[in-house]
Amino acid sequence: MTGILLRNIRPLGGPPVDLAIRDGRIGAMGEGLSADGLTVEEGDGAICVPGLVEAHTHLDKTVMGMGWYANAVGTDLRAMIDNERAERRRLGLDVSRQAMRHALALVGNGTTHVRTHVDVDTENGLDGLRDVLSLRDALRGVLDIQVVAFPQSGLMIRPGTAELLDQAMAMGADLVGGLDPCAVDRDPKGHLDTVFALADRHGAGVDIHLHEPGEMGAFSLELICERTRALGMAGKVTVSHGFCLGMPDARRTGALIDGLAELAIAVMTTGAPSREVPSVPRLRARGIRMGAGCDGVLDTWNPWNRPDMLDRARIVAQKNNMRSDADLAAVLDLCSSGGALAIGVGGHGLALGAPADLALLPGETLAAAVARGGPVLMTLKRGAVTARHGKALMEAP
Amino acid sequence: MTGILLRNIRPLGGPPVDLAIRDGRIGAMGEGLSADGLTVEEGDGAICVPGLVEAHTHLDKTVMGMGWYANAVGTDLRAMIDNERAERRRLGLDVSRQAMRHALALVGNGTTHVRTHVDVDTENGLDGLRDVLSLRDALRGVLDIQVVAFPQSGLMIRPGTAELLDQAMAMGADLVGGLDPCAVDRDPKGHLDTVFALADRHGAGVDIHLHEPGEMGAFSLELICERTRALGMAGKVTVSHGFCLGMPDARRTGALIDGLAELAIAVMTTGAPSREVPSVPRLRARGIRMGAGCDGVLDTWNPWNRPDMLDRARIVAQKNNMRSDADLAAVLDLCSSGGALAIGVGGHGLALGAPADLALLPGETLAAAVARGGPVLMTLKRGAVTARHGKALMEAP
Repeated sequence: MTGILLRNIRPLGGPPVDLAIRDGRIGAMGEGLSADGLTVEEGDGAICVPGLVEAHTHLDKTVMGMGWYANAVGTDLRAMIDNERAERRRLGLDVSRQAMRHALALVGNGTTHVRTHVDVDTENGLDGLRDVLSLRDALRGVLDIQVVAFPQSGLMIRPGTAELLDQAMAMGADLVGGLDPCAVDRDPKGHLDTVFALADRHGAGVDIHLHEPGEMGAFSLELICERTRALGMAGKVTVSHGFCLGMPDARRTGALIDGLAELAIAVMTTGAPSREVPSVPRLRARGIRMGAGCDGVLDTWNPWNRPDMLDRARIVAQKNNMRSDADLAAVLDLCSSGGALAIGVGGHGLALGAPADLALLPGETLAAAVARGGPVLMTLKRGAVTARHGKALMEAP
Repeated sequence: MTGILLRNIRPLGGPPVDLAIRDGRIGAMGEGLSADGLTVEEGDGAICVPGLVEAHTHLDKTVMGMGWYANAVGTDLRAMIDNERAERRRLGLDVSRQAMRHALALVGNGTTHVRTHVDVDTENGLDGLRDVLSLRDALRGVLDIQVVAFPQSGLMIRPGTAELLDQAMAMGADLVGGLDPCAVDRDPKGHLDTVFALADRHGAGVDIHLHEPGEMGAFSLELICERTRALGMAGKVTVSHGFCLGMPDARRTGALIDGLAELAIAVMTTGAPSREVPSVPRLRARGIRMGAGCDGVLDTWNPWNRPDMLDRARIVAQKNNMRSDADLAAVLDLCSSGGALAIGVGGHGLALGAPADLALLPGETLAAAVARGGPVLMTLKRGAVTARHGKALMEAP
């Protein structure tokens, strides 16, 4: 058996066709295709979209399956960071097991690509990163995982962290992470010089958490643009969250957005309901590559997030007041092909010859799929079925 | 058979007990109660909460079960109002049937009380209102429904509407509604004088949609307070949405909130992710009665909302950045006992002698129930089971 015939699926919610997959790629699409040695899977008129892309999460943090985590820490960022570091030990959080649970839940919900930030700090060292790199290998053919070495506890305020990040990159992490150069690290120049120097040395991209609001965040963003330009790193830099881009002054944010566009800096959003957030329609209209993510899921940070990009699409749509069917289709694109471009994966789509990384969704239209949510009917990775009815075929630990 | 013994349930997530219901009321609570002529229902350790309260919705608007409504109208409030009036006719929206579908979906999801706004305008007259009043009667014993006669299309800008509201109250509507006295009706004095005069004449309360942001909304809110005081209507007035209460100037909103507290004006929130919203912790700390609602569900306005107060609790928590277990328990209270107080229903709780209006929720803790959501395991109204596993026992049309 060399492939699969998906019978009666609707690409992007359009008219029903059959889709033939050979050697892991989309080989043909049309009415009444011959099965001809292919395994037939009945689509029953399901919507077919490029596999969902989780562009911002933390696979090393979830307590999924470990019983309910009672959160009493409040909402201060530094307190949440310190709480997590302490709780990792107290709970005996096994990153290998937990990351696998999280990753397979994502697969069950239609995901084919993930970018995950993984904590690197002087207390937990590189253990979690090593575990997630192993997971990346173990899930090859099921889920593509990009790993960001992430100084969650700060970089300049915790000497030794830069060296750990350097080792993390040598071990095979894909990108160098960063975090609130002013608000957390208290040394924007030091922080960003270090992050960009590491990226430059390893020929890697960067993805920086920027929660800083208003003018503080705008300042950090300017420093990020300056370094991106100086190092010739256009197209290799990502800003996650970017709450400052949602501040009310549209002229000010317009200048910032122009800077991002010029340097092809990507922006990841979670559509955080309680914060000002970058406007999805505005940034995309300006040509900014954007992705969306569920962020950490069932962890010591917050109880609401789910490992589910359809759920996230609804949250992003609500936050951006995107109501029309066209709007919701755009949000779904943000969570699949658009997100793939944002994390630097080209060719993720329904073109002939593209890798058969697909999700079959319930619903009459793309908008209905976002509004009503899962369970996702089927996930395929490189032409192999990886999940059915919301559940990954690979058993979670 | 005179009642039910709920065996092994956890009131508000506490230790497991049995709960005996006789004559529709909570008769006893404790370990190892005797069944003694009661029908036994196994709770299996489920959380037991007072029935969920949908404090702000529109039962007359949903297109649930009529196929996907493709929305192309955009986000302008007036355009959405006009679109809906036109679409009601084009779609042949049968309010009796649709309101029943919506109401039973709420029952399935744990709801025992609803306050619904029903459109009254010079084009559709009182037809929809009549249908919802009939539904209110038909569902007695299943769901308590309060009906607000709601001038959705405007009052002063559509002469004849005030007379229709007057008739609506005479027909048995419970409250007089209002809508954006400045932004929609363009005549705040005329609008509010009319609404309050109608309420005064019928001895009824008012519930006013106030989407107006910032200082415009604050102005309208002041006018509402002035009339509440002048007419001695303290405790009988509700403001829905109240986005102006979420504006950044905390001193200004502090004065507004003090005014609401003095006049016992209630506030309903949907936790609208794209808007500034009244802070749930802040208003509740000031003693303001608050309720939450899902607003219109699957209608011509928006595609995201679901007839599900657990889903809404999660949205309100996310919007208010309420993360801790204590926070989430408070949000669940907002969606049950707190919401009941806000709509003027006393005694909604788990006290001995209280009406047995209950919901059994899955989850280890109240916070887990909010974070993970349904399906709700069982809904009871006046001691009778009305829904199991997310589905009302009464068949929807």
